Amino acid sequence: MANEEKDLRGLAGRIYDLDEEVYRELGSSLGRVFNGKKADCIEETVRMMHERNEAHILRNELALISNMARTIPDDESRRRIMRKYDAILKEVTELPTSFIKGDILDQKMAQLNALNLSSRFSDSDHLIICIGRTYGCGGSEIGFTLADTLKINYYDVEIFDEVLKRLEAEKSTVHDRGGYPYKKNGKDERQYLNEIPAFAPAPKSTLKEKFREFNRYHGLPKKDAVFFNQSDLLCDMAKREDFVVMGRCADAILTNNRIPHISIFITAPLEQRIHRVMEVRKVENEKKARHLLTRLDKAHIKYYKYYTGRNWGKARNYDLCINSASYGIQGSVDLIMRMISQEK
Amino acid sequence: MANEEKDLRGLAGRIYDLDEEVYRELGSSLGRVFNGKKADCIEETVRMMHERNEAHILRNELALISNMARTIPDDESRRRIMRKYDAILKEVTELPTSFIKGDILDQKMAQLNALNLSSRFSDSDHLIICIGRTYGCGGSEIGFTLADTLKINYYDVEIFDEVLKRLEAEKSTVHDRGGYPYKKNGKDERQYLNEIPAFAPAPKSTLKEKFREFNRYHGLPKKDAVFFNQSDLLCDMAKREDFVVMGRCADAILTNNRIPHISIFITAPLEQRIHRVMEVRKVENEKKARHLLTRLDKAHIKYYKYYTGRNWGKARNYDLCINSASYGIQGSVDLIMRMISQEK
Repeated sequence: MANEEKDLRGLAGRIYDLDEEVYRELGSSLGRVFNGKKADCIEETVRMMHERNEAHILRNELALISNMARTIPDDESRRRIMRKYDAILKEVTELPTSFIKGDILDQKMAQLNALNLSSRFSDSDHLIICIGRTYGCGGSEIGFTLADTLKINYYDVEIFDEVLKRLEAEKSTVHDRGGYPYKKNGKDERQYLNEIPAFAPAPKSTLKEKFREFNRYHGLPKKDAVFFNQSDLLCDMAKREDFVVMGRCADAILTNNRIPHISIFITAPLEQRIHRVMEVRKVENEKKARHLLTRLDKAHIKYYKYYTGRNWGKARNYDLCINSASYGIQGSVDLIMRMISQEK
Repeated sequence: MANEEKDLRGLAGRIYDLDEEVYRELGSSLGRVFNGKKADCIEETVRMMHERNEAHILRNELALISNMARTIPDDESRRRIMRKYDAILKEVTELPTSFIKGDILDQKMAQLNALNLSSRFSDSDHLIICIGRTYGCGGSEIGFTLADTLKINYYDVEIFDEVLKRLEAEKSTVHDRGGYPYKKNGKDERQYLNEIPAFAPAPKSTLKEKFREFNRYHGLPKKDAVFFNQSDLLCDMAKREDFVVMGRCADAILTNNRIPHISIFITAPLEQRIHRVMEVRKVENEKKARHLLTRLDKAHIKYYKYYTGRNWGKARNYDLCINSASYGIQGSVDLIMRMISQEK
């Protein structure tokens, strides 16, 4: 018998004995994990140790044994047995077929995730936190408070637009805001839609105006020119400073440009968002608020899909999703701060 | 003029002056936030301070000023100005109309979320972590390792079933496993489907058998009886011990029973999951793995909807969603450990 095989047999034997010892201590009515003859059980366990696709069964047998062991009333016996269990578990997880082997970590994604805990990002990378959020979930407030707590810059569409306006003041400006909301007194829905300017209905323009725009933006429709201008600005900034950025497909843009960042999606159940929109944005009735949120969600999905080809709000597209209704604004900030902290 | 109004005017004036000071320090080509006459700007700012639904505009003006202020090269001037900014921001957030007012926190949800950072849960509550996950994302391994790190029990469907089997050994048993996978040698898909027994196709039974089952399970179909048995067990356990529980609609069951817990959903992009299933579960080719995952996801959605009326895997239904491909197994465990730690 090869040495390796002998080691496996030894390990399997210790698992069998541990099960027996737990049973003896508890005199448990729950019975034992291994009921057959010792030799047969060891044979079966060794066989499982060779098969990666049966590793979860062995894992669960160990979980059953330790679950029972934790109920042993006598402190000393329990500690002695748990020490044995810990040693066995360590050896099992070190097997080449261990259930822990074959990580789900995707190297490409991990490299781009500044929060990745096993491979800390290099000092030259900036801390960039991209926050996508549904309207009415308090996401902007969470992002702003987070940036303030971290003492880093905060960008959202309005600020982006202001920066672009100023940078390009001398050139023919491309910015995506028609009317700045405080110039409006109307209470109709466009006020809210306009806050996410990319969703705002295009202003009517004559054929001549359209043709002029077409030339000015290198043949791109204006909304695309705005998007690409903002993308360039975002990538430039990412080389220079730490910041929190809201929306703007920033996560997808940074991923495409291979710039490390943390992508977070914040949402809350529709009912809570409706309640908040009514309270905060003075939308008069529930029906209007529901209608507004449904429309905004749809516009958001469409916009994100158009520019990124990805699905907005799907958990698998972000590093992390937070339900703000579970934590509140300050609670969500605290949670993110905790994760970012490099100290354990 | 009322005192309160006077205070607002003073605050607005300080915001105007801060903007001017930043501009003077930077001689910035980016210009200033306030361009009009001082009296008019103050008037406009005070007006905004009265309107909760314009609070985000004031917030963004402050963000613009502080973004610029952070670029002031002279350390001493920058610090002096940032101290002024911090004081102003504090006063603005304390206004009754502040952008931070009107939290998204849902009291009912927050009370049930053991991780809620503003209202720590009572000492009598146990730490219960419910983990939902897509197949192939490494969720079980994360859950198991998390439980082991926390030194608390780990439950998944197989362990649940074993516990139920043992508890009810004397009674007429209700458990939801036909063939335990290690009794199988076949490599067909049912092997995987059976690991999530609720999804396994019902064994064919005669009318007589069906009638007998109907009576035994108090008129419930067998799979419902299994579900309700497991629900009872879960709620019982939640009163006695800390644990990690995988799937089983545990989050919905605990919510319905008003038992505090943390609900986490773990997933990864389909391509990474396909890769892992092929590696770990020895599924021979990509097409088979893709087909298997698609079927399991559909079955999962249906099962969860049937028993909870909720949508499986939607970010808004969990406290937190984690993309395991961004962190890997150990990285995800570290992340959750960090959040749970009550120390900041």
